[in-house]
Amino acid sequence: MDPVPTSGHATGPGGVADATPGEFRFIERHFLSLAGPAALGLADDAAVFAPPPGRELVVSADAMVQGVHFLPGDSPDSVGRKLLRVNLSDLAAMGAVPLGYLLTVTLPPDMTDDWFAGFCSGLAADQAEFGLSLLGGDTTSTSGPLVLSLTILGHVAPGAALRRNGAAAGDGLWVTGSIGDAALGLVVLQGGLEDPSGHLAARYRLPLPRVALGQALPGIATAAMDISDGLLQDCWHVCRQSHVAAVIEAALVPLSGAAREAGPAWRSTCLTGGDDYELLLAVPPANEAALRAAALACGTDISRIGHLEAGTCRVRVLDAAGAELDFERRGWSHL
Amino acid sequence: MDPVPTSGHATGPGGVADATPGEFRFIERHFLSLAGPAALGLADDAAVFAPPPGRELVVSADAMVQGVHFLPGDSPDSVGRKLLRVNLSDLAAMGAVPLGYLLTVTLPPDMTDDWFAGFCSGLAADQAEFGLSLLGGDTTSTSGPLVLSLTILGHVAPGAALRRNGAAAGDGLWVTGSIGDAALGLVVLQGGLEDPSGHLAARYRLPLPRVALGQALPGIATAAMDISDGLLQDCWHVCRQSHVAAVIEAALVPLSGAAREAGPAWRSTCLTGGDDYELLLAVPPANEAALRAAALACGTDISRIGHLEAGTCRVRVLDAAGAELDFERRGWSHL
Repeated sequence: MDPVPTSGHATGPGGVADATPGEFRFIERHFLSLAGPAALGLADDAAVFAPPPGRELVVSADAMVQGVHFLPGDSPDSVGRKLLRVNLSDLAAMGAVPLGYLLTVTLPPDMTDDWFAGFCSGLAADQAEFGLSLLGGDTTSTSGPLVLSLTILGHVAPGAALRRNGAAAGDGLWVTGSIGDAALGLVVLQGGLEDPSGHLAARYRLPLPRVALGQALPGIATAAMDISDGLLQDCWHVCRQSHVAAVIEAALVPLSGAAREAGPAWRSTCLTGGDDYELLLAVPPANEAALRAAALACGTDISRIGHLEAGTCRVRVLDAAGAELDFERRGWSHL
Repeated sequence: MDPVPTSGHATGPGGVADATPGEFRFIERHFLSLAGPAALGLADDAAVFAPPPGRELVVSADAMVQGVHFLPGDSPDSVGRKLLRVNLSDLAAMGAVPLGYLLTVTLPPDMTDDWFAGFCSGLAADQAEFGLSLLGGDTTSTSGPLVLSLTILGHVAPGAALRRNGAAAGDGLWVTGSIGDAALGLVVLQGGLEDPSGHLAARYRLPLPRVALGQALPGIATAAMDISDGLLQDCWHVCRQSHVAAVIEAALVPLSGAAREAGPAWRSTCLTGGDDYELLLAVPPANEAALRAAALACGTDISRIGHLEAGTCRVRVLDAAGAELDFERRGWSHL
């Protein structure tokens, strides 16, 4: 449980850089086994690789901060996996095939070597599952909480990337999986809700990026995004980019058994809470059969939750009787 | 001077995401004008671009932390430029042409809108100077100091990337510019040294990545890296990767007038201090004329500071009489 050596230029008296051989041993001990050939053994100034011929590149970056995106008690293994998965979810939303990632780690003074062994073991498991490898990165120190920043690279056929701006009035609105589990899971971990099955907390800690389904969606979905900031908020983004309005039927939004057990008082949390990392899709009725076939082939549940209509950037949520529901959450001020 | 709206999933009571329209307005206000076409208006889950045909991609990431890599009093403009430049320096060391970058910003509660206006104005200036644009990124919050993480992408001809492992015994050791100014500049900013001209502090705040020269070096240099952790430390890396030993003649290491004025007591700081972001090159004698021509064409000063010889991963520094100098800095424990 030795503290991890960290680097930061020019912190010492006299302005001497404090990068030590210990830092390089640390990188080699934990990160070298995650690196693919393009990483050049993590021994050069950058990674070098030939992009897949005839493909476009897709790149995205997401950071996670201890105490904000994960909790101090979360296992380092699950933190590593969540970090990779929230970024994989962005590739899924673009229909891209994962290629590799870069990682910057900003360490508080009390991080231990054991923590990093667990963190990298989580990264290793998900690299194998999703087919990508580490390209490079940086390790620095901070007096604040742990900050993890990941940049992910993937590729798509030219012109095939799923955008947010292609949806049209008449398209159906669809989501993968179930909605709201992760937001409820955080409430569970903060002591505000029971979770007898552990399902909700698990969904907060470990999202399921829909990478395989995403790759099947070009030509089927007219717009896609991943739901990271809450269903209603994110639906608003699709509406804004596609210049349409959305109607969501609350009763059609898929909830897990655990979320239903939490009771109706938590329904608005499910619709507005973050961290789902499911896909939100706009699909013309003519493509529904293809969507169902693709989802079946990937083993991914999908649900039609409403539709798009002519209008300007508005999301209405209707109850079973067709009455409009109101939401006053901070995450949802566009209604 | 309003505080900047920040996002962080699931911090609020009830697990509601706190991403607000304010966050998107913030992104559009400051970052949209930095974005190139590949960024898709910063409105999608990722950037999409066609890599330059027939070229290899070069990618690297470096993070900077307030209080470690820059000081609270540094102007936001110079922080933005330094962040981009330390990453551009990695591309320079690989001989790559800049293409674009992704940025994650992790904000403490007290950041102001004015600070970001300055930060982005610095990024804008250097984007124009070095020919690249913003591809995407993420904004999150922290209770600790500001953390800035940047991933840079560039491209090189296939097989042409400059590596650290190609140097051979007999190659000359060269550096660009002058060595040690930035390390002394930090001492100045910490009150430990006078700097009548302001040169030293300026060099700490604003490195000069050797991007143009780097692109001219494939076929001339057998190894290259940028000097970020101190000349001696970084020379050790080239030796380690190329399986050679280095001899540096201390009197040949180029010092600026301001560094010389600081006096001999600061010479070891110059050789071991970080943040130079000059290039360290191994160049066979037969290529020296080409190196000089390339440097002249780029307007970059270069200096031969020693040579490589057979041996295992050792860096000796000799004084003018040929006696070996000893260094006991933290940043230099390999001697």
